[in-house]
Amino acid sequence: MKIRDIYNYLDSISPFELQEKWDNSGLIVGNMDDKFKDVYISLDLDLDMIKKIKKNSLIITHHPLIFSPLKTLNNNTYSTKILKKLIKKDISLISMHTNIDKTHLNMYVGKEILGFDFKKIDDFVLTAKIDMSFKELKKIVKEKLKLEILKTVNCKKHINSISLTTGSGMSLLSSIQTDCFLTGDIKYHEAMEAKATNISLIDIGHYESEIYFSRLLNGLIEKYLQNNNKEAIIQASKNPFEYK
Amino acid sequence: MKIRDIYNYLDSISPFELQEKWDNSGLIVGNMDDKFKDVYISLDLDLDMIKKIKKNSLIITHHPLIFSPLKTLNNNTYSTKILKKLIKKDISLISMHTNIDKTHLNMYVGKEILGFDFKKIDDFVLTAKIDMSFKELKKIVKEKLKLEILKTVNCKKHINSISLTTGSGMSLLSSIQTDCFLTGDIKYHEAMEAKATNISLIDIGHYESEIYFSRLLNGLIEKYLQNNNKEAIIQASKNPFEYK
Amino acid sequence: MKIRDIYNYLDSISPFELQEKWDNSGLIVGNMDDKFKDVYISLDLDLDMIKKIKKNSLIITHHPLIFSPLKTLNNNTYSTKILKKLIKKDISLISMHTNIDKTHLNMYVGKEILGFDFKKIDDFVLTAKIDMSFKELKKIVKEKLKLEILKTVNCKKHINSISLTTGSGMSLLSSIQTDCFLTGDIKYHEAMEAKATNISLIDIGHYESEIYFSRLLNGLIEKYLQNNNKEAIIQASKNPFEYK
Amino acid sequence: MKIRDIYNYLDSISPFELQEKWDNSGLIVGNMDDKFKDVYISLDLDLDMIKKIKKNSLIITHHPLIFSPLKTLNNNTYSTKILKKLIKKDISLISMHTNIDKTHLNMYVGKEILGFDFKKIDDFVLTAKIDMSFKELKKIVKEKLKLEILKTVNCKKHINSISLTTGSGMSLLSSIQTDCFLTGDIKYHEAMEAKATNISLIDIGHYESEIYFSRLLNGLIEKYLQNNNKEAIIQASKNPFEYK
Amino acid sequence: MKIRDIYNYLDSISPFELQEKWDNSGLIVGNMDDKFKDVYISLDLDLDMIKKIKKNSLIITHHPLIFSPLKTLNNNTYSTKILKKLIKKDISLISMHTNIDKTHLNMYVGKEILGFDFKKIDDFVLTAKIDMSFKELKKIVKEKLKLEILKTVNCKKHINSISLTTGSGMSLLSSIQTDCFLTGDIKYHEAMEAKATNISLIDIGHYESEIYFSRLLNGLIEKYLQNNNKEAIIQASKNPFEYK
Amino acid sequence: MKIRDIYNYLDSISPFELQEKWDNSGLIVGNMDDKFKDVYISLDLDLDMIKKIKKNSLIITHHPLIFSPLKTLNNNTYSTKILKKLIKKDISLISMHTNIDKTHLNMYVGKEILGFDFKKIDDFVLTAKIDMSFKELKKIVKEKLKLEILKTVNCKKHINSISLTTGSGMSLLSSIQTDCFLTGDIKYHEAMEAKATNISLIDIGHYESEIYFSRLLNGLIEKYLQNNNKEAIIQASKNPFEYK
Repeated sequence: MKIRDIYNYLDSISPFELQEKWDNSGLIVGNMDDKFKDVYISLDLDLDMIKKIKKNSLIITHHPLIFSPLKTLNNNTYSTKILKKLIKKDISLISMHTNIDKTHLNMYVGKEILGFDFKKIDDFVLTAKIDMSFKELKKIVKEKLKLEILKTVNCKKHINSISLTTGSGMSLLSSIQTDCFLTGDIKYHEAMEAKATNISLIDIGHYESEIYFSRLLNGLIEKYLQNNNKEAIIQASKNPFEYK
Repeated sequence: MKIRDIYNYLDSISPFELQEKWDNSGLIVGNMDDKFKDVYISLDLDLDMIKKIKKNSLIITHHPLIFSPLKTLNNNTYSTKILKKLIKKDISLISMHTNIDKTHLNMYVGKEILGFDFKKIDDFVLTAKIDMSFKELKKIVKEKLKLEILKTVNCKKHINSISLTTGSGMSLLSSIQTDCFLTGDIKYHEAMEAKATNISLIDIGHYESEIYFSRLLNGLIEKYLQNNNKEAIIQASKNPFEYK
Repeated sequence: MKIRDIYNYLDSISPFELQEKWDNSGLIVGNMDDKFKDVYISLDLDLDMIKKIKKNSLIITHHPLIFSPLKTLNNNTYSTKILKKLIKKDISLISMHTNIDKTHLNMYVGKEILGFDFKKIDDFVLTAKIDMSFKELKKIVKEKLKLEILKTVNCKKHINSISLTTGSGMSLLSSIQTDCFLTGDIKYHEAMEAKATNISLIDIGHYESEIYFSRLLNGLIEKYLQNNNKEAIIQASKNPFEYK
Repeated sequence: MKIRDIYNYLDSISPFELQEKWDNSGLIVGNMDDKFKDVYISLDLDLDMIKKIKKNSLIITHHPLIFSPLKTLNNNTYSTKILKKLIKKDISLISMHTNIDKTHLNMYVGKEILGFDFKKIDDFVLTAKIDMSFKELKKIVKEKLKLEILKTVNCKKHINSISLTTGSGMSLLSSIQTDCFLTGDIKYHEAMEAKATNISLIDIGHYESEIYFSRLLNGLIEKYLQNNNKEAIIQASKNPFEYK
Repeated sequence: MKIRDIYNYLDSISPFELQEKWDNSGLIVGNMDDKFKDVYISLDLDLDMIKKIKKNSLIITHHPLIFSPLKTLNNNTYSTKILKKLIKKDISLISMHTNIDKTHLNMYVGKEILGFDFKKIDDFVLTAKIDMSFKELKKIVKEKLKLEILKTVNCKKHINSISLTTGSGMSLLSSIQTDCFLTGDIKYHEAMEAKATNISLIDIGHYESEIYFSRLLNGLIEKYLQNNNKEAIIQASKNPFEYK
Repeated sequence: MKIRDIYNYLDSISPFELQEKWDNSGLIVGNMDDKFKDVYISLDLDLDMIKKIKKNSLIITHHPLIFSPLKTLNNNTYSTKILKKLIKKDISLISMHTNIDKTHLNMYVGKEILGFDFKKIDDFVLTAKIDMSFKELKKIVKEKLKLEILKTVNCKKHINSISLTTGSGMSLLSSIQTDCFLTGDIKYHEAMEAKATNISLIDIGHYESEIYFSRLLNGLIEKYLQNNNKEAIIQASKNPFEYK
C-alpha cells in the first residue's frame, strides 16, 4: 500500500485544504510513492514512542511535527530530534490538524466524550445549552475528561450555555457569547480578560481534550484499512506535564 | 503632588525607555500636570479593586492596562471596562512592566523570595547553580511561592542549575542552558519542546511569580513618598484562577 | 430605546460594512445594550458642544472620533479629551462616515445643495455635464455652499463637465476625467498636479461641503424616531477655521 | 562648467545626505559629466517656465520633480509632462528639498522674512518667544508673507510663543509646545486637533512660505557662480491657487 | 492613426490585463491620443536601433523598458538612456510581455519553431510527449533554435516528455513533471536542483527562445495594419552575448 | 574530535557572523558535541558523492544545503534528498559561504588563480588595473579558469580595469566602475543592462569560479588537522552543466 493511497482516503474524509493558513497538515515526512507496512495513530510523537515504531511504517498524528520552517537539522529541538529518528527508520508522517478539528474532532469530543448537545458556531467553536451550577459542570467535565487538576475562572454560579474548543482556543475568547468557555492552555492575561467580561472558564487541557484524536481517527479509517488487510496501532501519546 | 513628579522619580529608579518595543509601560491614563491624592500599587487592576480606590488618586501597576491599541471604547473588554471606571473617578494609571522586570523584579523574586543565588544571563533570564533532586527543588519552589498546584515537566532526577523568568517566559526556552527552567503560563507544545530537549520545567504561575511587584515597588519608593507626606496603599490583586 | 435598535436601523439605511478598510464607522463609545434618552446629530464633536449634550444620550456624527488606535488615554489629543467627556456623561457615540458618503451624502450635496444633475462614477466621485464659464460656476458654488473665501485652480475658461467629492477628495485626482473637480482640503502639490494636467479645481471646504450631514441624516431617521417618541437634536458643529 | 562641480558645491553648503528618507533631493535629470550654460533657480517648475529656459541649462528647484517612482512616461501627469520638456531641451535638474529646509530655509523665512528671533527645536520646527495679541500676530504674518487671505484657528487671545515650519508641517502638530503654529496646507481634521489641544494656527501657505527659496539660494551661491563667470537667473514660480 | 487605436487592437488580440502583477506591459512612453507614422516591432530596444527608428513612430517590444520604477532620469542605466532617446524623437513605446507569453508566444515557439505537439499546462508551461534520446532532442533543439552553444543538464538517456517555457522559466522548476525542461537563463543552483530531482535541462537561451516575438506579432497585426495603410518594420534586436 | 572544535577553528579563520543576512552558513546538520572521524571538503554535495562519504564523518561545503527553510522533508527536492542521506549516515555538515567569500575566496581566485593584482573595493567586489585588449583578457581568463565555453558581452576593445566577483555577482552591476566585470550566472536582461551602460562582461561560471574553495580551505586548515591527526579529503564536486 502506498502513502498516496491512504493520503487520498484521509483527504476524502477530512480535506487537507480545509487547514488554516498557518497550519502544516499533510505529508510531512516521506514520499507519496513509498510503500508502508504498519500504520500507527497518535496525538503526538515522542522519542520513546519512535523506538517502538517499526521501520517502513506510517504514523498519522494530530499535531504537525514542523511548525516553524527549518534552516538547520541540528538535533537540538523537538522537531529535529524526532525527524532524525523518523528518517533513520524510513518512517513516513502525515498530520491531520486544523482540517480534522473542523470536520470531526471538536464535535467528537463535545458529543461523544463530554456528552453535551453541541452545535457548531464556527469552524472552531461549538456551543450547547445546559442548565446546571458551575460546580456541577466542573464535576462532569473533570470526570469525563479525566482531568487530574481543575483550573477554572469562576464568574457565574449557574451556567445556561457553554462553548467548547479543544486544544488551545483562548484566541477566540472575544467571540464567545455563552456563560462558560471550555478550552486548554489558558494563560493569566486571558483569564483576566474572561473575568472582566464575565465569562467563566474551565481549562480542559490541550493534551487531555485532544487525546481522543487516535480513537476517533481509528474509527474513521478502520474499514478502509481492513479492506487493505491492515489495522492501525494506536500509540499512547504521553502528557509532558505531571501534577504534584 | 503632580503625576509628573512621581513619574520622574519612577523613571530614575527604572527608566521607562528600557521597556521592550511591544510593551506599553508609562503613563497610560491621566495627565502629567494632574495632581493626585492617594497612591496605590497593584500587580493588576480588577473591577472590584477600582470600587475601593478613591477619586483623584494614582495607581501604579505592573501590567499595562492597554496592550492592543483601541479603536472603540465599547465596554466589552477588560481594558475598556476598567478604563471607563478610571476615567469616571479621575484616577491616573502608570504601568511599570518590562522596564522593572529588567531592573528589579526578576532578581527580587529569584533572590529575596526563592532564596537562590541567581546571576543575570540576559535582560529576562537569571540562572543559579544548585545541587539537589528535582523532588526537593519542587518542594522548595512550591513552599516559597505558595503554589496551590504544581505543574511540572520532569526530565532529570538531579538538578545542578536552574533558570528563572517571572511571568510568562516560555518564548525564551531555546536559550536556556540549565537543567530546569522556572517560569509561568507554560503551554502544551512548549512542554513537549522542553521534554524533547531534556529541560525540566516548573510552572511557577504568572500571577504567583509576579505578585511581589507591589511589595518590591513599595520598598523602592517608600522614602520618596514619606518626604512628600504620602504613603502607598498596596492593593491585593486577585488571581483569576481557582484550583478545584 | 437601546443603542442596538437605532444602530440596526442606521445599518439598514446605510450598511456599516460598506465603510472603507481604513475607516472606523460604527459604535465607537457605549454598549449595544445601553439605553439612551436624547439623540443628537452632528458633523463632528467639540468640547463646547459636549457641555450642552445631556447625560445618557446618544450622538451620531459623520467623522469617527478615533482614527488612529489609542495606546494611552492621556487627555492630550482631540480624541482623548472628547472621549473622557463622553465617558463621564455616559454618552454613546455612533459614527457614519464612508458608508453614508457612498450611499447618500455625496449625492445629497451634489443634487440637493449644489443643484446639478450628478451621476455616480464610483463610490466617491460624482460627475455632471454643465455648460457655463468657470466664473459663473465659481459664483454658483460659492453661493450654494456659503463659502467665505474661494480658493481655485483655473485651467479653462469654459466648463463642460464637473466632478464632485465632498470632504477631502484630492487623492482621487488621477481618476478625474472632467474639466473641473470640486472637493475640499486641497494642498499645494495637488494643485500643481491639477494645473499641469489641465483640471480646474474649486476648494469647496471639507467642513462646508459636509455640514449637510446632520440635515440629511435627520431626514432619513425622522419618522423612525417619531415612531419611538423621539426627536433628533441637530448640533451646530463649528468650523475650526476663521478667515481674516 | 560641469553638473558635478556645482552639485559638489551645493552639497558642501547643504549636504544632500541630510534629506529625509522619503525625499528625492539630488540630481534628478541629467548627468554629472554634462556641461551646462545657464543656471536657473525656482521653487518649482511649470510648463510656461520651461518654455523660457534655454537649452543645455541647469535648473535648481526646491521641490523634487519626481516623488512617486515612475513606471511609465505617458505625459499625463505633472512630473512626466515636465520631464519630457526637460529632456527635449537637454536641461538638467537638481532639487534641494529637505536638506536645505533643515540647514537654511526654515531659519531664513523665520528670521529674515518674518523677523522673529527663532531658535531651532528640531530639524523642521523653529520656535520664538513673542508677546502680542493673536490679532497683531496675524497682521504681521499677513504683511510680511504677503498672504492674500488669512486662514486661522483661534484658541488664545494673547500669544507668548510661536512655532514655524515652512511648507506643509501639520504632521508635526503633536510636538508643538507653543501657543501658535505657523505652517501651510492645513487640513480640516488637523485644525480640529489643534482647536481641541488649544494651539492656534496661522496657515502661511505652502507656496507663500517657501517662495523665498530662490532668493536664499541665490545668495548662497552668488560668489561661487561669479568665480565661474556665471550668474543665476531667478524664475518666478507661479502659485497654482487663485483667491476669488 | 492614433496610439489608442492600435493599443485597443493589440488588447483585443492579447489582453493587457492578463499580465502578471510584477510586469509592466502596456503603453510605457507616449500618449493615447498621439498620432504615429511608422510602426516597428522588436524583442528589445538598443541604442543602435533607436538611431534607425524614425521620429513620431511607434515601437512595440516584448520586454517592458521600465521594470523598476524610476526616481531619477540620469542617463546612467539602460532604461534611462533609451527613454531619453525615445522622448527626443517623439517615439511611443508599447510592450506586450507576460500577456502575449500566455496567449501566443510560448505556444508559437513550441509548435511553429520547435515543431513538437505541445499542450498548455498552466499559463507559462507547455508539455509534449516525445520519444527520443536526449542526444537526438539536443540536436533538434539546437538546430531549430539556431543555438550557438548547448548548455544542458543530463539526467536521463531517453526522453519521453518535455516541458517548455520561453525566456527565463527556472522559477517554475518545482512544478515540472516531465523528463526534460527547455528554458533560458539557467543558473548554477537551479541546475543542481534539477540534477538532484532527476529533470534534464536544455538552456534554450532567453534571447534565442523569444526572438520569434517580432515575426509572431507581425503575423497577428499584418491585416489590421494593411487596412490602415501601414506595414510593420521588424527590427533585429541584437543578442548582447557573444560566444568565443 | 568534536564538531565544536573544528567549528571554532573555522570561525577563527573566517567568522561565521560575517555572513550576509540571507545566508545560512554554519552548522547545518549535526550537533556541536558529536564526534566525527573523517573530514571532507567540497564546493557542493551531490547524491553520488554522499555514497562515497564514510559514516560519522564531517563535510565542509561552500554552499549551504538549506536556503529556503523547510516545512516538509518529502524527498522531492535537492535539499531534502541530500539531507536524508546525511542523516542516515550520521554525517555532519558545516557550510562556509558568504563569510569565506569576504575573507578569502574572492581574493584567492583573483590573485592565485587569475594572477591579477586585485584590490578589495567592498565585501564582494575586487578590482585590478590591467592594460590589454578584450581579446587577450578573454584568452587569459579562459585558460586560467579552464572554461569550456566563453560567454561575453563586448563593449570596449581595450580594457584598462576589471572587477571580479566569484559565483553569482550580477546584482552588483550598478556599482561597477571598471571597463569589464568578471562574474558567473549572467542572465539576458543583466547583459542588456551592461551593454547599454558600456561595461563588458565575461561569464566566468558560478561553478568554475568557486571550485577553488576546496583547495583554498584545505590550505587553511591543513596544519590544524595534522595537529589533530587528521587529513581532509577533497571531494570533486561535479558541474551540473554539460556543454555540447
